[in-house]
Amino acid sequence: MAEGIERLRRCIAGFTRLVEARLTEERLLDEGRRLLGELIAVDDWLPDACAVPDPERYQQYLLYCDPLERFSMVSFVWGPGQSTPIHDHTVWGLIGMLRGAELSHGWDLATRCRTGTTRLEPGMVDAVSPSIGDVHQVENALADRVSISIHVYGANIGAVARHVYRESGETVPFVSGYVNTVLPNLWDRSAAVRATLPARA
Amino acid sequence: MAEGIERLRRCIAGFTRLVEARLTEERLLDEGRRLLGELIAVDDWLPDACAVPDPERYQQYLLYCDPLERFSMVSFVWGPGQSTPIHDHTVWGLIGMLRGAELSHGWDLATRCRTGTTRLEPGMVDAVSPSIGDVHQVENALADRVSISIHVYGANIGAVARHVYRESGETVPFVSGYVNTVLPNLWDRSAAVRATLPARA
Ligand SMILES: [Fe+3]
Ligand SMILES: [Fe+3]
Ligand SMILES: [Mg+2]
Repeated sequence: MAEGIERLRRCIAGFTRLVEARLTEERLLDEGRRLLGELIAVDDWLPDACAVPDPERYQQYLLYCDPLERFSMVSFVWGPGQSTPIHDHTVWGLIGMLRGAELSHGWDLATRCRTGTTRLEPGMVDAVSPSIGDVHQVENALADRVSISIHVYGANIGAVARHVYRESGETVPFVSGYVNTVLPNLWDRSAAVRATLPARA
Repeated sequence: MAEGIERLRRCIAGFTRLVEARLTEERLLDEGRRLLGELIAVDDWLPDACAVPDPERYQQYLLYCDPLERFSMVSFVWGPGQSTPIHDHTVWGLIGMLRGAELSHGWDLATRCRTGTTRLEPGMVDAVSPSIGDVHQVENALADRVSISIHVYGANIGAVARHVYRESGETVPFVSGYVNTVLPNLWDRSAAVRATLPARA
């Protein structure tokens, strides 16, 4: 397991406390931005297995899902030049840039026009939700390199029925799923605890 | 993923609600017995990767760990004839027999004698804790077959400093750890949700 894995454990614990506290979305997003910002401030913790790009399409690896499906965390791995269709989320989402860069183009469903573009560089956190703007198209800002962002959503995002919007105006239901059938075991702290044991009690 | 994986998700969700409710240990163990009993009532859900015995020693596969380390769940896989040393847990634990059978011998530290033996058959749930009796030796009741029990503990058990007791009276600190570096992804419900989507929204 990577050196900085404690950083990931701390972030997951923090989001667990946030959803248990039943905050307003505004406060949850404020606190969540801080937690996710701390996680992505250092790029030393993402398990290699959750950082593998695919030549055909962007990959979403589940890192953790809350058992009551109040939040989930994924690593979103962009191959060079890859992009999403225009889509919504239907729940709050936080996007923290870990490696490389991405462009998020806001989309207005009424006018079918882009509303603006945000460029995320490592260390930056962006947010989406039905109340603050939920529809965008996203792309790897780099044509020649892998980029990776870490997303936290207010649900088990791989099981949320949501929508892709065609520029023609057509709306297509979709569910994103996860590419990984196994998750990293983040919780084996046995070696660290063992190192503190006396030889005899 | 096995057919009955929803059973495992439901049990993990139930224990999450229990620890969030901050019950007394007595109530938590009562409710927990019920939850674990429902899980092990049917043997159709344990991922094969968490059911693999080792010829040398019993295996503990982490199935789930609460991010605040208020509980963890493991599959405990016995090779034919394998047994543990006499040990404690220092936290509450529930043991549900899924497959095969095991024998739990209670141990009295003062007299260095066995206090009694419980035989667990599939569907049965036993409990340990410092308040109700925490020291035992356990063995596969079957000399020629694999047995598997599902354990839920009131901590990240693979990171708990606890003790092995030699019959000589010697006490040896230990931490059990986990054999698996990856966990099953229990949360990909995308196929089921996708099957309910209309072709167009
Ligand atoms: Fe998005
Ligand atoms: Fe035990
Ligand atoms: Mg482009």
